Amino acid sequence: MNIHPIQLFDAASSTFTYLLVDPAGSSAVIIDPVDHHVERDLAHLRRLGLDLAYVLETHAHADHVTSNGTLCALTGALSAVPSGCGIAPAKVQLQHGDVLRFGVNDTITALHTPGHTAGSMCYLWRGNVFTGDTLLIDGCGRTDFQGGSAAALFDSVTGKLFTLPGATLVWPAHDYKGQSVSTIGWERDHNARLAARSKPDFVTLMGQLDLPKPKMLDIAVPANRNLGLPHGV
Amino acid sequence: MNIHPIQLFDAASSTFTYLLVDPAGSSAVIIDPVDHHVERDLAHLRRLGLDLAYVLETHAHADHVTSNGTLCALTGALSAVPSGCGIAPAKVQLQHGDVLRFGVNDTITALHTPGHTAGSMCYLWRGNVFTGDTLLIDGCGRTDFQGGSAAALFDSVTGKLFTLPGATLVWPAHDYKGQSVSTIGWERDHNARLAARSKPDFVTLMGQLDLPKPKMLDIAVPANRNLGLPHGV
Repeated sequence: MNIHPIQLFDAASSTFTYLLVDPAGSSAVIIDPVDHHVERDLAHLRRLGLDLAYVLETHAHADHVTSNGTLCALTGALSAVPSGCGIAPAKVQLQHGDVLRFGVNDTITALHTPGHTAGSMCYLWRGNVFTGDTLLIDGCGRTDFQGGSAAALFDSVTGKLFTLPGATLVWPAHDYKGQSVSTIGWERDHNARLAARSKPDFVTLMGQLDLPKPKMLDIAVPANRNLGLPHGV
Repeated sequence: MNIHPIQLFDAASSTFTYLLVDPAGSSAVIIDPVDHHVERDLAHLRRLGLDLAYVLETHAHADHVTSNGTLCALTGALSAVPSGCGIAPAKVQLQHGDVLRFGVNDTITALHTPGHTAGSMCYLWRGNVFTGDTLLIDGCGRTDFQGGSAAALFDSVTGKLFTLPGATLVWPAHDYKGQSVSTIGWERDHNARLAARSKPDFVTLMGQLDLPKPKMLDIAVPANRNLGLPHGV
């Protein structure tokens, strides 16, 4: 049975935010919300009659600021974040294999997938995996800051994501080419960076990318480590 | 059980295209595709391993050109369109109440909802309704061309859409404010144009909108009546 999330988009940073609705249609989880879309996201909760249980982050983002703290303050939801991302104010610090429950009996399982950042996580829910910047459609996140490691990313993707069932739907944190969703099977066979490539080749490839520093890095990471709330709150 | 479509967006015309996947995850239907996103849409079918059964139109659009004919030619899918929209080349000319089957035993039911255009239809699928330009989130489509009628739109929405279960998810053909999905219950209670308004009031309101002619009307409607294919094909 293919249950999909509701996928929302921030055009400024090409970030996907996900709204997961439990089968009873009453409880929800949001993954990776963006600060200037608080009203949009609250409006969806109102229109669909949803209680927000958790707001998750896949990592401490470098390209946009989360609305996690604001959403939780306004709704009573709990912040749940990877324990290795330095997001101290979050109520729930997730470890690999942790299970969050929401709705009647819905579960989200956290997978620690270091590589884009040292603390990055992916989340499994009903045949869907939310891959953050670890695995993108036909690509992957950069590995050159925040404890990033190409070798670790290779191990995370090949060991923890590509071992999922091939039909698992892949919902990334970003897409820059207008694509929305993929599958583990397709990425395992076709991903331009990761399919049919050895770990040393991948590490060499990532080492040669020579990407510019993200414009928002120095603002976004400290802000996201405080759930997007003003410091001192 | 809340099965959602995959919602895709065309920023140029603020058009939503929907990809409906059957529960077995092998067969799909596309609603309201846009011409310059053929490659995007085919890539989704490839990555998800989907056979395309039908390509539907909610009406003959005035603001963008469909890729319906091209998608069908490239995949073997069948075009299915409202019988009252003058889209002669489509294999399937839908009447109110017609049921399309795809996948193992999935069904889509056509609702004739005149008002935005005389032939406009909405489509019901597993607790979701695809409302075209008949019902938008907190609004509705204009009713001043292509046989449009404010009185007919009022009757369509109040008689055929607002009578659906309140939890039915509303997926419109457009949104201009960054919203993605609503519910019948919310629109029945809150829609700025249609909730708690009498039919005469609504007709007066729509008659006063004084909207400019859509820029693409003279190009898009003839093109869409030929499924977006060059004339003579």
